[in-house]
Amino acid sequence: MDFNILNKINTPDDVKKLNTAELKELASDIREALLRKVSTKGGHFGPNLGMVEATIAMHYVFNSPVDKIVYDVSHQSYPHKMLTGRKNAFTNPEEYHSVTGYTSQHESEHDFFTIGHTSTSVSLACGLAKARDVKGEKGNVIAVIGDGSLSGGEAYEGLNNAAELGNNMIIVVNDNDMSIAENHGGLYKNLKLLRETKGQAENNFFKTLGLDYVFVDGHDIEALIETFSKVKDIDHPIVVHMYTIKGKGYDKAVENKEPFHYTMPFDLETGKLLGDFSAETYISILSNFLEENARRDKKVVGITAATPSFMGLNSLRTPEFKDQYIDVGIAEEHAIALASGMASQGAKPVAVFMSSFIQRTYDQLSQDLAINNNPALIVVNAGGISGADVTHLGLFDIPLISNIPNIVYLAPTSKEEYLAMLQWGLDQQEQPVVVRTPSAEVVSTGEKIKPDFSKLNTYKKVAQGNKVAIIGLGAFFKLGQEVKKHLKETTGIDATLINPRFITGLDENMLNSLVEDHEVVITLEDGLLNGGFGEKIARFYGDKDVKVLNFGATKEFTDSVPVEELYTRYHLTKELIVDDIKSALK
Amino acid sequence: MDFNILNKINTPDDVKKLNTAELKELASDIREALLRKVSTKGGHFGPNLGMVEATIAMHYVFNSPVDKIVYDVSHQSYPHKMLTGRKNAFTNPEEYHSVTGYTSQHESEHDFFTIGHTSTSVSLACGLAKARDVKGEKGNVIAVIGDGSLSGGEAYEGLNNAAELGNNMIIVVNDNDMSIAENHGGLYKNLKLLRETKGQAENNFFKTLGLDYVFVDGHDIEALIETFSKVKDIDHPIVVHMYTIKGKGYDKAVENKEPFHYTMPFDLETGKLLGDFSAETYISILSNFLEENARRDKKVVGITAATPSFMGLNSLRTPEFKDQYIDVGIAEEHAIALASGMASQGAKPVAVFMSSFIQRTYDQLSQDLAINNNPALIVVNAGGISGADVTHLGLFDIPLISNIPNIVYLAPTSKEEYLAMLQWGLDQQEQPVVVRTPSAEVVSTGEKIKPDFSKLNTYKKVAQGNKVAIIGLGAFFKLGQEVKKHLKETTGIDATLINPRFITGLDENMLNSLVEDHEVVITLEDGLLNGGFGEKIARFYGDKDVKVLNFGATKEFTDSVPVEELYTRYHLTKELIVDDIKSALK
Repeated sequence: MDFNILNKINTPDDVKKLNTAELKELASDIREALLRKVSTKGGHFGPNLGMVEATIAMHYVFNSPVDKIVYDVSHQSYPHKMLTGRKNAFTNPEEYHSVTGYTSQHESEHDFFTIGHTSTSVSLACGLAKARDVKGEKGNVIAVIGDGSLSGGEAYEGLNNAAELGNNMIIVVNDNDMSIAENHGGLYKNLKLLRETKGQAENNFFKTLGLDYVFVDGHDIEALIETFSKVKDIDHPIVVHMYTIKGKGYDKAVENKEPFHYTMPFDLETGKLLGDFSAETYISILSNFLEENARRDKKVVGITAATPSFMGLNSLRTPEFKDQYIDVGIAEEHAIALASGMASQGAKPVAVFMSSFIQRTYDQLSQDLAINNNPALIVVNAGGISGADVTHLGLFDIPLISNIPNIVYLAPTSKEEYLAMLQWGLDQQEQPVVVRTPSAEVVSTGEKIKPDFSKLNTYKKVAQGNKVAIIGLGAFFKLGQEVKKHLKETTGIDATLINPRFITGLDENMLNSLVEDHEVVITLEDGLLNGGFGEKIARFYGDKDVKVLNFGATKEFTDSVPVEELYTRYHLTKELIVDDIKSALK
Repeated sequence: MDFNILNKINTPDDVKKLNTAELKELASDIREALLRKVSTKGGHFGPNLGMVEATIAMHYVFNSPVDKIVYDVSHQSYPHKMLTGRKNAFTNPEEYHSVTGYTSQHESEHDFFTIGHTSTSVSLACGLAKARDVKGEKGNVIAVIGDGSLSGGEAYEGLNNAAELGNNMIIVVNDNDMSIAENHGGLYKNLKLLRETKGQAENNFFKTLGLDYVFVDGHDIEALIETFSKVKDIDHPIVVHMYTIKGKGYDKAVENKEPFHYTMPFDLETGKLLGDFSAETYISILSNFLEENARRDKKVVGITAATPSFMGLNSLRTPEFKDQYIDVGIAEEHAIALASGMASQGAKPVAVFMSSFIQRTYDQLSQDLAINNNPALIVVNAGGISGADVTHLGLFDIPLISNIPNIVYLAPTSKEEYLAMLQWGLDQQEQPVVVRTPSAEVVSTGEKIKPDFSKLNTYKKVAQGNKVAIIGLGAFFKLGQEVKKHLKETTGIDATLINPRFITGLDENMLNSLVEDHEVVITLEDGLLNGGFGEKIARFYGDKDVKVLNFGATKEFTDSVPVEELYTRYHLTKELIVDDIKSALK
């Protein structure tokens, strides 16, 4: 296939010139481009295959960018990118890297926001609509939402308020009967009812929120064009409930929706991933830990917000543990409050989140959990400096969580310490415990570590030296070891090395004991410096005769910057750190 | 009235012994106690008057604490407290202070959580129900929600997931047709329809979420008892939709629901507040600022999450500004995303929150607003150290907001600076700007301050001295002035005094310039030390020959501790600070 039609599309105007047969051919071209690129490079797959016809129809009917389309999460915007001047990023392997995986206003005038978290499109679109109205302008505002995003509270707040806007807004609900994993929540029964009755059922979630409503087959281009044409320039908010098939066009993605939601490079023929994923990871260790403990104790319950596979909860998705596994859908706030409620009565919830997504539940961590001091165990994965997209950075969990009273936040440095911390967090009944899974290769020391961290804020001195003390937190303890070695080799200084273990408090005795023999204390943390761990050490030594150097990430949003570049930028290599230590010693 | 019946109630068992006439008399007693206490001491009023009959009926039917009642926000739990061993706190003026304004597990075995933020009860109750089930126990779990809480996303996430629990849970929806201000959102039309049809309408929000449903008059004790008896021990989740009148029993509260939601002491006869509230406050200054700017520019739109009066938006609640004022209900996440969307298109949203409630929207501040760098103006009120309830502390906004990239967070020290910062924040088009309203008496300097803070992170040196430099942030600048004076008087040292203005960045030039002539730099901030402003200063000076002392709040949850006691505890008086400076100078 040579993308005969897609190659002609440079702007949405080119879509409007096509006849029905050509529109269908365009759909085939887009699917072929998706198959080729995503199988080669990885990316969001199923959601984009499901949105092909709807995207074509939107650009056929509406007049982007005067009419404004906002994609929720925007992981389903690849077809949109192909139709808005960015097709080469999908058809030409040499240009595959020229676009990001999400919408970006820096990339195209047809994109309005940089988005990567769920459930935001309706609220953002309400903002576009209100701005249009106060400026006395015209045009359609279209919010695309679905693929599980409806379970998030922000989506509901947006839908509930959209009805009050009193002017044009079109909410395209992409109902594919899936979240990232299978759908959860009572709402999905109503969506099923609406699908089965082709939108005719009297009891209708969207209508109960005061919204007008219409139903359409999301893969029928002609029906979609007809529907969008009807609602175009409407004078009030309306929901276009569109049924689509996630993964449509690639059978293996339709049959295995969850692994093909987002995929690493795979073989198109077999559907098998190309890389080798058999090595032990901290996620597989967590998964085994959960399985063993759930088997031992019926009160252990794993909780996920729609990402069981990535987060280490797959081991609990079996009939054996059907009462010990809860997927709340994309609803992090509920997950934390649920865990707090369970822990208050002696159950043993373990809620697992990506660093970037635990941000969505700060108030529940503080109010529902920490004020009530309930002993839930929370695990934070994928925290740390990385080359991630700007919307998926793992930099902020330490400032976010560690400044909340009562919570004990732990940073393990090895497999053995990780397991001991998890076990203690699960068994103890004193307070909420959060464990930060190292975003690094597994380090195994063979040590026997007692699962007892009840002496809070006690650091572990791994090596006693002098002049320089290195406090290496969590995943960066290894960097601390490297710095110690390099410092010895280049200056002869035998540095003290400390594994602080606790992110949330200071070991004042140990820190005080360093004053006499040490001129410089350095802290290393795999996260943001601002509001983080090291600044507390700097504050502690503020009135003492010890210099402190904090190493970690600068306060900035980075977008897909290679991690090696960031390490250099932030002085996070042993050579740069030793240089800084030498300067401070002068 | 001598509380004939109420005086006999020491436990819920005593309620179960009463006949219908006595139950009604008990309702009168409770209302009388509410009238007397709240008019004398202040507190939540309308919500409690509305919950009298329902609370009696719940304790008549259910078996607390084996059956567990969770109150949303728990500001409507006064009648519950009266029936669960705490009546004297309402009937005896000398014991008025013996209970908190919210539920507290430290106060009674009939309370399960310390709650003060909205929309959490269903999720917390799901946790209680799941814990019951994994432990193989029996009993009813009852979540009370309403009074506007249904507009919050967490409530929706909870309702949507409750349906999946597959076991007993009773959700009592207290529908009083109000939020704190009037209700907003499409949902309330559905509640109205359900009220008008006595729950018979086919289109039913709760049913669309997969929940069973029953409707009842919330002031009819007999009907309530009958309904609760029917749903008791049910084997699946059910909503009891109960219509109540907020303020019932005190006509002036029924007629003026919003001011009587929470009230300061008032005259029962006239309904008038007893205190004098005519003085200028930063809130009244904000209100005038919004009115003037909204009149000048139709693109200025004030946004509140259900608290217009307290937050300074009353001036926009007039027909003149009907298109320039949005109350989203209790939906902070939507409010921020809405503001971001508006600002992206050149509208001028001003969203105002209490410090304690802006916590509810961290992810939207970071993702929807800051990553997109849209120039919305956000105002944070009631931030700072105070004697507030543990759920309403204003300590956390600086750690929360100031560590997010792109946002400029400003701390004014006077009326003139406040207005200049608001104006610049509104007019500039570069980035999100947040202004922290001082929680203090208005300071007016008469200065003319240009509304231009575009040279980011430039501090203002108010007095050049030596040896000691005082950096007084926002409301604590005044404390800095006092410290300077006291230091001069007691030691002769003429300290440098700095108004940093910017919470979110360092004036490195100015900070470097202090090194030569200053031995000690102190920072003063009206908030939490951990993750806050001062720690950044400590980090900056970490490798320099300057001592740093950070003053602010220790990381802890305090509950209604008088502010003077906290100031002493945290060394926030001029005398204690000067003592600490002297120690550091030694």
